Amino acid sequence: MKATRFYGKEDIRTEQIPEPELLPGSVKIKVEWTGICGTDLHEFEEGAIFCPKPGHPHPLTGETTPVVLGHELAGVIAGLGEGVTGLTVGERVALEPYILCGECEYCLGGEQYNLCPKAGYYGLSGWGGGFAEYVVVNNPAMVHPLGELSTEVGALVEPLSVAHHAVRRSGAKAGDTAVVFGAGPIGIFVTLILKAIGVETIYNVEISTIRKEKVLSAGSTRVIDPTAEDVVATIRELTGGRGTDVAFECVAASPALQAAMDSTRSGGTVVNVSIWSHNADVNLFGLTMRELNLVGTSAYANDHAAVIKLLQEGRIENVEQYITGRISVEDVVELGFKQLIHNKEENVKIIVHP
Amino acid sequence: MKATRFYGKEDIRTEQIPEPELLPGSVKIKVEWTGICGTDLHEFEEGAIFCPKPGHPHPLTGETTPVVLGHELAGVIAGLGEGVTGLTVGERVALEPYILCGECEYCLGGEQYNLCPKAGYYGLSGWGGGFAEYVVVNNPAMVHPLGELSTEVGALVEPLSVAHHAVRRSGAKAGDTAVVFGAGPIGIFVTLILKAIGVETIYNVEISTIRKEKVLSAGSTRVIDPTAEDVVATIRELTGGRGTDVAFECVAASPALQAAMDSTRSGGTVVNVSIWSHNADVNLFGLTMRELNLVGTSAYANDHAAVIKLLQEGRIENVEQYITGRISVEDVVELGFKQLIHNKEENVKIIVHP
Repeated sequence: MKATRFYGKEDIRTEQIPEPELLPGSVKIKVEWTGICGTDLHEFEEGAIFCPKPGHPHPLTGETTPVVLGHELAGVIAGLGEGVTGLTVGERVALEPYILCGECEYCLGGEQYNLCPKAGYYGLSGWGGGFAEYVVVNNPAMVHPLGELSTEVGALVEPLSVAHHAVRRSGAKAGDTAVVFGAGPIGIFVTLILKAIGVETIYNVEISTIRKEKVLSAGSTRVIDPTAEDVVATIRELTGGRGTDVAFECVAASPALQAAMDSTRSGGTVVNVSIWSHNADVNLFGLTMRELNLVGTSAYANDHAAVIKLLQEGRIENVEQYITGRISVEDVVELGFKQLIHNKEENVKIIVHP
Repeated sequence: MKATRFYGKEDIRTEQIPEPELLPGSVKIKVEWTGICGTDLHEFEEGAIFCPKPGHPHPLTGETTPVVLGHELAGVIAGLGEGVTGLTVGERVALEPYILCGECEYCLGGEQYNLCPKAGYYGLSGWGGGFAEYVVVNNPAMVHPLGELSTEVGALVEPLSVAHHAVRRSGAKAGDTAVVFGAGPIGIFVTLILKAIGVETIYNVEISTIRKEKVLSAGSTRVIDPTAEDVVATIRELTGGRGTDVAFECVAASPALQAAMDSTRSGGTVVNVSIWSHNADVNLFGLTMRELNLVGTSAYANDHAAVIKLLQEGRIENVEQYITGRISVEDVVELGFKQLIHNKEENVKIIVHP
């Protein structure tokens, strides 16, 4: 079958590889659409980072590069291995792309399997991925039926689950107020999820004109431009001096993290969603004195089904508008990766058909 | 009556002031013992910081310096104002020294009144304090009966409540593992509380030989000296690679905060107990990827009664050993503040009799 594999930095090749074999207990998915993630771009520009380098096989898959890329995937069930129940051949599904050890305290606990120390991902760690015609998944619990939703929307379930998990980590509930720093794909998706769970007042902080418009269409109450306004003073004023209940840092910059902390009410929660490549330089006086919670969020756990339900109920509206490109796997580098790198602001999600 | 008041930096005077009047709904306490807090030392060395400066009266007391110092106080009830029930003249009590607005969301919520934006303290914000013969307290709910406990031990209830609140913020429970950075008074008291609630494995990180001994006597499983050992590697080794469930930063130094985060298991909680006077410079990669919680802790709320119960049940053992000085209020500067500043390591708590 045709598959696009990551060999190393700026070396991605579309080639023929053997079709994966359906094994007992596993699920074979015919991939229809797979989104390109920021992680994929990092691998392309600076990798291998997540992908296992030669000599350092992934502890669960045993594989090293080349590995098939693409972990934001949706498709149709093409086959069910012996003993698999609850799924039907031909039904549309989104994949939660975890490869888990199944033995650690986190896997056994069931609530935080995202923290499994050996966790890998289809599309990054071996065992195939979404930039291929088929993928065989060893854990049927990670295959989530989409019902009437399309597989185009299904390809958005994974990044929406990242946002859903971040929102769960914040403890935000209907009626709360929120501020989201950064209106890239994650900032937009966090805004969509906040809106979907009933957070009506959502402030967004963004510089780019294009992104400001996008996040307004996602449900932003007001976009604050930090080059034109004092973010903290504005949020304090808008919230009657109180601050928002929760804040989301999706920029990976110290001034944004500081403003997120200073904009949050006493006892509130700041979720650090971004992955930092440099140290943060922040004043923790307020964290202590105002008893803030600064929490990390890593991928998702038990979020996919909730996201699919929100989509099915229409609580995440017009999500297709965030698909800014539909391309073929042969074009993934030129029309996918390079487009996302060079026209970052115009794009949210580009999805790939294998 | 005799009282010791803070006028300004390095200006503390013991003098005669009028005895406070018992008002309806209030409680008059004859002070027996009052501990000297690190906050008092900060006021003395660099103040006014917390104390309201001339021209900037405290929003609730309306007072400015000079103010009576001393907020870690215990004594005997000398009088009950009209309408006060549930307390008895002559009984020993410890004071939770809050002055609260009673109107904000935090005061009305009842669980987080420590976050009242106007909160002040007897002994810092006006309305008297513990370095005086008497104090009249406007809120009887803040007066906690000591039962059979002495007022010497009663003077330790406030700093133990700071530690108790920090431990509650960590979510630590019996059987968990913990690491505490810094074995000053707060680090020692956090260790005592952890032990009291059933955390049997407590690692402490400290450089000072004297403090190492003190924290071992408080229940430390093992003290790690960061000048002699790699703290994170040692804790990882001691916990089978997992890390501790919770960590406490009581140093206010970036390397300690970083080590606290790196020593904590995925999904665990780091409590930032210390008050920082400079920015923290930390790598947040682990916070995100391992979904840590970095939380602040501010004073206490609903902790005093729990601490008194732990003391009464003997679960905080030999607490008197941490009283390293008993002095008269006339000697508070020479034998109190200066002793604590210049012989920091030998001392834990010096208590003052008015």
